[in-house]
Amino acid sequence: MRILLSNDDGVHAPGLQLLAKALRTCADVHVVAPDRDRSGASNSLTLSRPLRPEILDNGDVRVDGTPTDCVHLAITGLLAEEPDMVISGINAGANLGDDVLYSGTVAAAMEGRFLGLPAIAVSLAGYPCQHFDSAARAVLELLERLRNMPLPSDTILNVNVPNLPWDEIRGFQATRLGHRHKAEPVTRSTDPRGRPIYWVGPAGPEQDAGPGTDFHAIRSGYVSVTPIQVDLTRYDAMDVVSRWLTGERA
Amino acid sequence: MRILLSNDDGVHAPGLQLLAKALRTCADVHVVAPDRDRSGASNSLTLSRPLRPEILDNGDVRVDGTPTDCVHLAITGLLAEEPDMVISGINAGANLGDDVLYSGTVAAAMEGRFLGLPAIAVSLAGYPCQHFDSAARAVLELLERLRNMPLPSDTILNVNVPNLPWDEIRGFQATRLGHRHKAEPVTRSTDPRGRPIYWVGPAGPEQDAGPGTDFHAIRSGYVSVTPIQVDLTRYDAMDVVSRWLTGERA
Amino acid sequence: MRILLSNDDGVHAPGLQLLAKALRTCADVHVVAPDRDRSGASNSLTLSRPLRPEILDNGDVRVDGTPTDCVHLAITGLLAEEPDMVISGINAGANLGDDVLYSGTVAAAMEGRFLGLPAIAVSLAGYPCQHFDSAARAVLELLERLRNMPLPSDTILNVNVPNLPWDEIRGFQATRLGHRHKAEPVTRSTDPRGRPIYWVGPAGPEQDAGPGTDFHAIRSGYVSVTPIQVDLTRYDAMDVVSRWLTGERA
Amino acid sequence: MRILLSNDDGVHAPGLQLLAKALRTCADVHVVAPDRDRSGASNSLTLSRPLRPEILDNGDVRVDGTPTDCVHLAITGLLAEEPDMVISGINAGANLGDDVLYSGTVAAAMEGRFLGLPAIAVSLAGYPCQHFDSAARAVLELLERLRNMPLPSDTILNVNVPNLPWDEIRGFQATRLGHRHKAEPVTRSTDPRGRPIYWVGPAGPEQDAGPGTDFHAIRSGYVSVTPIQVDLTRYDAMDVVSRWLTGERA
Repeated sequence: MRILLSNDDGVHAPGLQLLAKALRTCADVHVVAPDRDRSGASNSLTLSRPLRPEILDNGDVRVDGTPTDCVHLAITGLLAEEPDMVISGINAGANLGDDVLYSGTVAAAMEGRFLGLPAIAVSLAGYPCQHFDSAARAVLELLERLRNMPLPSDTILNVNVPNLPWDEIRGFQATRLGHRHKAEPVTRSTDPRGRPIYWVGPAGPEQDAGPGTDFHAIRSGYVSVTPIQVDLTRYDAMDVVSRWLTGERA
Repeated sequence: MRILLSNDDGVHAPGLQLLAKALRTCADVHVVAPDRDRSGASNSLTLSRPLRPEILDNGDVRVDGTPTDCVHLAITGLLAEEPDMVISGINAGANLGDDVLYSGTVAAAMEGRFLGLPAIAVSLAGYPCQHFDSAARAVLELLERLRNMPLPSDTILNVNVPNLPWDEIRGFQATRLGHRHKAEPVTRSTDPRGRPIYWVGPAGPEQDAGPGTDFHAIRSGYVSVTPIQVDLTRYDAMDVVSRWLTGERA
Repeated sequence: MRILLSNDDGVHAPGLQLLAKALRTCADVHVVAPDRDRSGASNSLTLSRPLRPEILDNGDVRVDGTPTDCVHLAITGLLAEEPDMVISGINAGANLGDDVLYSGTVAAAMEGRFLGLPAIAVSLAGYPCQHFDSAARAVLELLERLRNMPLPSDTILNVNVPNLPWDEIRGFQATRLGHRHKAEPVTRSTDPRGRPIYWVGPAGPEQDAGPGTDFHAIRSGYVSVTPIQVDLTRYDAMDVVSRWLTGERA
Repeated sequence: MRILLSNDDGVHAPGLQLLAKALRTCADVHVVAPDRDRSGASNSLTLSRPLRPEILDNGDVRVDGTPTDCVHLAITGLLAEEPDMVISGINAGANLGDDVLYSGTVAAAMEGRFLGLPAIAVSLAGYPCQHFDSAARAVLELLERLRNMPLPSDTILNVNVPNLPWDEIRGFQATRLGHRHKAEPVTRSTDPRGRPIYWVGPAGPEQDAGPGTDFHAIRSGYVSVTPIQVDLTRYDAMDVVSRWLTGERA
């Protein structure tokens, strides 16, 4: 099995390096990852300038771009052979609920949607991150499962792992994404030269975080596994919109 | 009606300025937009540094950030009063099918999902862009419709307008997003110093572009209106994943 | 006379636009300037990616690069005809003493050193900037003087103008750059997520600012005019270093 | 002796890592360097956003800023104790003649001008870089010399080392900076989407490169050592400018 491994914390991040080592026990692993922290990059893709992949001494490839750039480049020509699947992570910090929309970790996995096997984004839900090995273990178990019972190749799994020792984790749960309230207000401040600056505020508090959600799984000590889609069409609103458009033109 | 107007082509882009002028005939318009072209920015959000909004002579606000940053900042504290809705565009170029995933124009609208009225992303589908006024007209008609028959406040509409004179446009169609094949390979090249560089290749050809899709509506001369969701959970795969996880642990 | 006008505050900055207007009364002016604020850019030159000059509606050219990039591009091929001289500014704020080393305004002028007429960097020394018209007037007077009595073509003049009404300015003085003490310490702080950040501190207090320096001229109400060099060789230390190297190998 | 080591190729560059190892045989070395390649950064200083230094596993500090930012931060508060001197390099490629104006390697050394010992910028003049060990050896010899016979503390030395095995290098020479002709024209091209792009062209050919210049020393197999100044006043033009200003007002 050929695995393309990327992330959004950068190629030198401990979460990625630990996962690379773990995956190499059972797969052929190619690391192509950003040259620096690109958290919050979402699916952003660099069209205005060329990219410069650089091969490091250990064979890892460092790219001056986003997580999406890394995976895109790797599977559309940079790697000699196309990989079977993309794994992204281990992210230092959770990617739960609405946060997924902004996540570079999840975006990297989404960009692997055209490959032969499901894509996996994996994040360690807790701070400070102490149990990257639990997250690596969770990924190895999911790979073992995939080997025995395949999933459709276009599946994208967003996996969050509690920041606990492996033997305190209670198992895996299929979840849906929870939701948050609107974000906290911006933080207004001034720089040392007296000019106004604004920091994006923290994510809002949980609003929809009951049983069945990824928030709830993590809080209960389970590995949360959410299937993710790339089709942003809101099918359940199509009728309403269609009638709204037609009704008005009638 | 208070409208927050943003885009991903930058505050000085002609598409935004023309739409601002058109909207001011019927609404109180506040422009908060990136200081430069941020196409392809997706939902990326700037967490690692502060933002510096700057008020221009005409009252527009220019932000050194992404489209998502602009809308986020505006509605979480920058504007004195919360707007009723977000409009994003007019983008110079289509945002159809899978492209929506990477679009900063659509992302700006998505960030307005917590407001009192639906959010609208509007793009002019054609190159070179000649008929921004058709796209502005389409937005005004949609606003008129909203006034007469409301839509749920969390609706997000991705609107693409054919690059045609208004009287050659055949009407509005509710559509779903089409799909493309995998992207074209990267373009390998060398810079003037002889070092290798890689450009992200063009989007793949249309794969699913039949009747009902946004691709088809545009090709047929209709304004395409697609309802967009922000919940990335793939609900129709939850059962499969749940059984896959449980089955394996049994 | 064909003048290339640039700056480091960005093409939309009021200081540049006011100077462009003033210069157009007596010269053929071509504006090529950064797309955004690039203060502190020094002579940095973009070699790792291509530049995208964009012609605005009013004919100004906006470049996604540094001040040095703008001038370099303009005079090595972007403009149809080579200009006679480069003027950079009006910068919003002084460029005095050691600050010149970091200045993008002065760097833009330095990049014009290969042209047929002297290059001029002009800054308004004061905050908030109220008298851009005084600075524009100072530039016009210098041009008038150049017309009557030329200076060597490789001359680079760093001009600072007091932030005063023109009739309160006492005249022009040729000056040398003064010097500052070491910069103030960095400002340690934390971002809203609790992580440590560091801001570069203010420039140090004046150390060598007596009569004859640019600091002194400005304080006394004169326009300060300092000839600038691009040869960084410290000739007065060559003997010492030569003996040091030879003595040691003897 | 406490040495602050930086560069412009980034903290992970082989030239810096090899020099750090060599210096640690005789000094207390602190590495504070950019997180990525910042070649061509000149003396640019980041004032618009805060910096985030990050301590790596081996104790090196990585900064999301320019070479000047790194040294500035280190000596104005990041390091617990002020270092005695700054060394910058080993740069992969020469920094000769006018190129010095754009060099981040030399800028990092210049920023160490307030410390107790001379600052040294060191570059390996050749491509591909094969003899970083020769450049490290040259630095060690200069340090040994400094120990026996001090130089004024505000001395800044720009050192270029031929890309040769150490025993083929003929010695050290004190040099002045040579000069180049105007740069080659920009390279016009189009990106894969058909839009025009411009690459900054190569540096111009040597114009003033005879005996005594750094160009000549390198070509002749010597280590070139040029004393550098930070005072950009062109003293030899002050009289001319003074008379020009006064004459005209008379």
